Formats: sequence, C-alpha cells, structure tokens
Amino acid sequence: MVGAGMSRFGAFADLSSRDLFVEAYDDMTTLMDKGFDTSDIETMYVGNFSSDLFEGQAHVAPIMSDWLGLTPKPATRIENACASGGSALREGMMAIASGMYDVVLVGGVEKMSNLATERVTDTLAMAADALYEIPAGLTFPGIFATIATAYIHQYEASTDHLAKVAIKNHANGALNPKAQFNKPLRDIMDRRIARAKERGEPVPEWEDELDFLHDDRANPLVAWPLRLYDCAPITDGAACVLLVADELASSFTEAPIKVIGIGQASGRPLHDSESLTSLSSAKAAAEEAYLMAGVGPGDIQVAEVHDCFTPAEIVATEDLGFFEPGEGARALDEGRTTIQGDKPVNTSGGLKAKGHPVGASGVGMAVEIFHQLRQEAGERQVPNDSLELGLSHNVGGTGGTCVVTIYQRG
Amino acid sequence: MVGAGMSRFGAFADLSSRDLFVEAYDDMTTLMDKGFDTSDIETMYVGNFSSDLFEGQAHVAPIMSDWLGLTPKPATRIENACASGGSALREGMMAIASGMYDVVLVGGVEKMSNLATERVTDTLAMAADALYEIPAGLTFPGIFATIATAYIHQYEASTDHLAKVAIKNHANGALNPKAQFNKPLRDIMDRRIARAKERGEPVPEWEDELDFLHDDRANPLVAWPLRLYDCAPITDGAACVLLVADELASSFTEAPIKVIGIGQASGRPLHDSESLTSLSSAKAAAEEAYLMAGVGPGDIQVAEVHDCFTPAEIVATEDLGFFEPGEGARALDEGRTTIQGDKPVNTSGGLKAKGHPVGASGVGMAVEIFHQLRQEAGERQVPNDSLELGLSHNVGGTGGTCVVTIYQRG
Repeated sequence: MVGAGMSRFGAFADLSSRDLFVEAYDDMTTLMDKGFDTSDIETMYVGNFSSDLFEGQAHVAPIMSDWLGLTPKPATRIENACASGGSALREGMMAIASGMYDVVLVGGVEKMSNLATERVTDTLAMAADALYEIPAGLTFPGIFATIATAYIHQYEASTDHLAKVAIKNHANGALNPKAQFNKPLRDIMDRRIARAKERGEPVPEWEDELDFLHDDRANPLVAWPLRLYDCAPITDGAACVLLVADELASSFTEAPIKVIGIGQASGRPLHDSESLTSLSSAKAAAEEAYLMAGVGPGDIQVAEVHDCFTPAEIVATEDLGFFEPGEGARALDEGRTTIQGDKPVNTSGGLKAKGHPVGASGVGMAVEIFHQLRQEAGERQVPNDSLELGLSHNVGGTGGTCVVTIYQRG
Repeated sequence: MVGAGMSRFGAFADLSSRDLFVEAYDDMTTLMDKGFDTSDIETMYVGNFSSDLFEGQAHVAPIMSDWLGLTPKPATRIENACASGGSALREGMMAIASGMYDVVLVGGVEKMSNLATERVTDTLAMAADALYEIPAGLTFPGIFATIATAYIHQYEASTDHLAKVAIKNHANGALNPKAQFNKPLRDIMDRRIARAKERGEPVPEWEDELDFLHDDRANPLVAWPLRLYDCAPITDGAACVLLVADELASSFTEAPIKVIGIGQASGRPLHDSESLTSLSSAKAAAEEAYLMAGVGPGDIQVAEVHDCFTPAEIVATEDLGFFEPGEGARALDEGRTTIQGDKPVNTSGGLKAKGHPVGASGVGMAVEIFHQLRQEAGERQVPNDSLELGLSHNVGGTGGTCVVTIYQRG
C-alpha cells in the first residue's frame, strides 16, 4: 500500500457517489510522497453495497473509472454487503499476486443519505437472509440487539459495556477531522445541559456520559438493549488505497505499508449459526490472516474492527483473539482499547463515530491503519514510535462474510 | 476449466436464485468425468447483476456458498451489469494465478421474472448512466435501437440483417434443450398459420421467417427499428464452471479446456462514446485477450457473443475482428455465422434464444464453449473434429464493461 485517502464521511445532500469517490482519490493523490500519475493505474476495484438501491445506479465501477479518467482500464465492482471494501482489497491483492497487474486502485463508496431512514434499514436488511430472517422481522438493529442480549447474559456483562464502546469511539472520532461525528459524547451532553439552563428547563442530572447514554430521552431505545448511540450512523463517503507490487513500492513512497496477511471467510446466516456471541466467519478469516502473516493476535498493535453496533466491537475483539471470550467487556472497563491502551481499537472513531458508508467502510479501515503505521494519524496517533503491525476486521451482513487484513510497516 | 454446468434457462415462478444455482452446480458435478468432491473447492465467485432489486436479497455469494455446503470458504459477488459473469471468471482466473487458490468455482445467477416487465426494464436501465442517460429517457431497447439505426445508416444495412440474427439464434436454440426458446422461428410462424386456418381467420401471407418478423402484428415494434424478436428475453437461470490450476487439471478430467487469454476493459457511457457502431471496451478487451492468448480473430473457430439485442451480435462480430466494419451484416447474408458456417457464432442460441439471466450470461457462454471444444454439444455441435479455439464476449451496460475470454482444448 503506497497511498490512501478518504472523503469526508457524513450526510451530503449535494454530493453523489461520483463526487465522493473523486474526493477520496484526490485526498490520496495529494498525500502521495513521490511522483504518481493516474495513468499508472492498471486496474481498479470498487467496493459498493447497493448504489442500485441507494442511487438508482448499478454498474458503478466503470462510471467511477470514467470519473477518474481511467477508461479503458478494467474496473470491477465487488459486493459482499458491509464487507465489500474488505473483499475489494482481497481482489486487488490477488490481482497483483497473479502477476497480471502491478498497480491497482482499490476503492469503496456508498451514498446512503438519499433514502429515508426506514428505507435505509430495509435496504441494509437485504444483507441478511431475505428468505428466513427478514420475513421473521429481523432488521440489523434487531440482529445486533440479539447478539448484545446473548453476550450480556452469557458473560454477566451490562449495557455499560456497550456504552463504553460508544464513549471511546466518539472520543476518537473527535480527533478525526473527516469523521461524521467529531465531538466527544461529553460535549454533546454538556451542550444539552447548558441549553436546558439557558431555557430555564429542568436540568438533566447526568453525572457522566454513562448517565447520559442510559437516559431514554437523551438516547432513545432502538431495539432493546440497543439505543441510538449504539448504532453506526447512515453515512455518505468513499475511501481508496493504491496497491503496487512489492518491488515497485519504493518508486511511489519512502514508507510503504505491506499487506502481509489477508483472510476471508463466509458464515451461515445468523438464524443458522452455532453461537450468538461470536461470528464463525470472523474466527476463520482471522485464522487465515494470522497464518499467512506469520503473526498472532498478541502482535497486533492497532486495529480497526467492524463496530456497526457497539456489541459488534466487543465480539470482534474476542473473535480476533485479542481477548478471551467474555473478556472483551472487561478490557473496556480497563481502558485497554483506547488510543493510550495496550490494544488500541478503532482509533479513527470506528464505524460508530467516523461513519459507516457500508461499501467503503472496509477500505476506510485500511486508510486508518495506513496512517497509524506511518505515524501520520495526527491527534489520534497511537503513542508508540515503533508501531509496526496493524489489523482490520470487516464484516458483511450477520457475519455472512468477514475479511481480516494484517498490515506491516514496510 | 474442468467442469461446466447450467440450469435450465426460462421463467420459473417457483424457483429462487438459490434453487437455480444449485441446479447449475448439480448439472456440473453430474457431468464431471473423474472424482470430485465439493470440499475440493477453495473459494468461489458469483456473478450477479442485482438480486437486491430482483429478489430483495443482496450479499448473495455467502448464501449460494451455504446452499452448496461450502461455508466457511470465501465467497464473493462480482457485479459488472450483464458482464458480471465474465468479470467473475476473470477474478477466478486471477485467484488461481495468484497462487492463493488452486480450485475455484465461478458461478453466475439471476432470477428476473419476479418483477413485471416494465420494472425489469427500469432495473436494467440502472446498468447505463443514471445521471445522464436514464433521465433522458434511454432504456436498453432504446440504446440498442440507436445502435441499430446508426449501423443501418452507416453501412447500408437493413432490418433484414437484424432479423437474420434472430432466425439463426432461434434455430440454434431449438437444438439446445436448456434454452428458454427451443423452437425455430419457422415453427412459431407455421403454428400461427395453422391456428388461423383452424379458426377460419384470415391466413397471414408470410412466405418465410423474414416476412413473419417484419409483420407488426406477429412481431410488434419495441423501439424502432427493434421488434420483439430482436430482444433477448427476461430469464431466470444460473451457470457455473470449475477452474483449477493447470497442474491439477488431469486429476479432474481427461479433457480440460484451458483459458489462454482474458481481457477486460471499461468504456465511457454511450452518451459520451465516440462511435455508435462499435464498443470501445469490446475492442480493447479483445485486443488484450488476443495478445495474452497469442492468437488472432482468424484463429477462433467458435464464439459466443453478447447478443442482448440483434444489432449487438453484428457489432460484436466486427469489434472482435471476425469481420471488417460493416461486413458483419454481409456475413449473415452469407450464412458464415451459422453452426455450419466458417465462423459459428452463438451456437447455444445466444442470449437471444438460450436466454439472458444477466449476471449468469457470461458464465453461460463459457459453459457452451466448454462443451463445443469437448465435442459434447449434441445436436448443435460445430461439425469440425479438430475444434481447438473458442471465444466468449460478454458486455455490461452500454459497453461500460466488456470481457473477452479465449479458450483452448487442453
């Protein structure tokens, strides 16, 4: 990986997928340290969940290609729900490993805010099993609420643990200028208190963010026990990375990041899976990635994991082997996954605060790890001068797909 | 390629994508000459245009994988409109060339008949440019009508040439038990004449199929000059092929078919393209495929080309270099592209008569070439004992994507 960029993440009524993709690409090229020309790119992949449903535009890859000026270079859309970006990265890797291409652009994009919220929820539900799960009334908040409930029951955890994921990731997002939410939850809370005082209304008695997040009015229930701030937002955004063959890396940058392991696995739909507190695809993908990279979970120094809902982050840190089953919640209590902790997770703000443009999210994770390993993550930089190994974990649907990628400073 | 299979193509109210995919897979495994077990498959690709819109099911790859019993093997959906199948084949090729996988299943599926015809037309239109083309009123019949008009004007061709594509491909489809239309047009015409006689109605004065196809009542206009029989049908169907690394082929079959060249290119949307009588992506993809294979258009002995509308076949045979520009029409007059001709095209019946389940079509082409080169195409077998080289040409959208693949008897 010799370049990485992303658009702002947020809700942008005036921007289309095309605009966002170009914004991400411009961000990447602006940051590239050595000479680079668009014509160097030989083929491209676009991770996208459903611009068909969101924008009425299928067949997005050649359109993105055209907007970057890449025509007639081959361009292919990859769709594996919210893991589309991670799968696109895997195809890009294999394109280079095949010897057919040396310079490959991997991007991801989603423009979700065109639809009303309930239609977005219906659209996302299509990533689950439309035959057995959706007709039974499952939506994604419902699915992850089920996972949260099972986890809390099985490991004597509580909704405090879910809230702590939100507090941490919003704090990280506050340090990321491109995040959709770049305010700590405490600021949001304090502003509400100040407003109540100004208006002479009853002042909420919140002692801290946990109080705030447990308040039905401040943080309404979505699907018990998940509340509004347990859910990743609806996001427009794009991200891209430039992959080149190993021997060419030094002509693009002094500080390449190597992809040393990638694993992808499929899982049976949730209604048919053996556990509600672990995703089998995540474990299988992690195992494959660790094996290829020749490293283990203890070696990983920074990770972006798929926190589409707060319980998903806890489960992810266990599926990846960072913590034993049930210990992911404890790790939050101990602050181990904060930027200053021994296992920083979602320094970007995660899907929770950075935003979750579903087809782009997997590529966005790679962008964050790229910057962290190069010590260029600004205020949210993990304070470790010898940062060397990073990981991303990107889930599609209810674990139908998971892609785990391991990166090393070059 | 060591195995190939397809479901029946048609409109099947009671079958879902899952059923069709399994049917194609079963067809493939039944035909495999040596031992093979599903667990041999290491990864899979699924070409699919939009099961999101057709069936309310996105993220189809892990679901197909589950229905075949492949979980947790990685499964990825590839979408490049009607070239999704061809692009899936290219990803499968690269997965093997990368050295990461040795046994790869490449499938394609589309279940289109759930939607009403006008909604299918709207859905397919999303493969064009939703920003510039669809709002201007273009639909796919409109787009290919534009191409037909330009071709007829530029080369002094006529609608007789379009009709001749339909007559040939329906004649071929009549020899394909899995084709959606497996009757020659003459049978349809004769039956109408017989019915009129039986009922004592005025008997149509059709001398031959050309008369029949030029009759407004028998063959109504869709978008001038295209009539009903100029358009590929709305089809449900699936197809798959098994790719393995070269050195393993002999353990799967005595008669492998080698993929010796593959080219993919993107093209600008039609509204922005330089010519209406040629697709730039097809020319670029063909050039790449010929170069990789080390053969030229004159060497190809059998081809499946993307005849989504009759003019598309004529243009394809020229873009591929089989005939000079303007000579594709003449070649039809001379019968050169019939099964008995010197350049047999669409022996399967093509998309026109075999059917066009859009995401599966590119893989379906590979299935036909596989059987032709192995001399197992039954009644439609090209009568040439030393058949060695075949080609498929798979177009997405208005040429936004084209994939050309060249196959050799192993």
